[in-house]
Amino acid sequence: MTTIIVETMPKAELLDPQGKAVAGALARLGTSTFASVRIGKRFEIVVDGPVDDAILAEVRTVAEEILSNSVIEDVVGIHVVEAAI
Amino acid sequence: MTTIIVETMPKAELLDPQGKAVAGALARLGTSTFASVRIGKRFEIVVDGPVDDAILAEVRTVAEEILSNSVIEDVVGIHVVEAAI
Repeated sequence: MTTIIVETMPKAELLDPQGKAVAGALARLGTSTFASVRIGKRFEIVVDGPVDDAILAEVRTVAEEILSNSVIEDVVGIHVVEAAI
Repeated sequence: MTTIIVETMPKAELLDPQGKAVAGALARLGTSTFASVRIGKRFEIVVDGPVDDAILAEVRTVAEEILSNSVIEDVVGIHVVEAAI
């Protein structure tokens, strides 16, 4: 079992209302350390057996076409974690 | 400007309906490579200036108490990325 991590974030040029809300809440709670917060998604995809180039290519396609909405999100990372967490 | 990444995932013992839905959709679309999918969140927190231990401790507290719901989620990672993306 191998876990592949896919990370997506809202595009930099778009407002991220969820992140803005969290940043505002942190400021109201008295934490002035943080300049901004943006919130994206982290997918853990489990594959039976080892990961080869064909599976990685398939993950890349799925990440771009299904897991993320390419109008508003970017896929920012695809990593392979050897043992399932 | 330094970016700190905080990653949260639904706890392993809990069902993740959003992940199940994605896994089901992938299976219906003809992709049988993936055994399971779980979906968590990825926060990008931007800090003005360098990150020291005090800021990291504050991020850890905020991650555990505000960014994640400790009843259903685990904080699985906190990383510092030097340059803002």
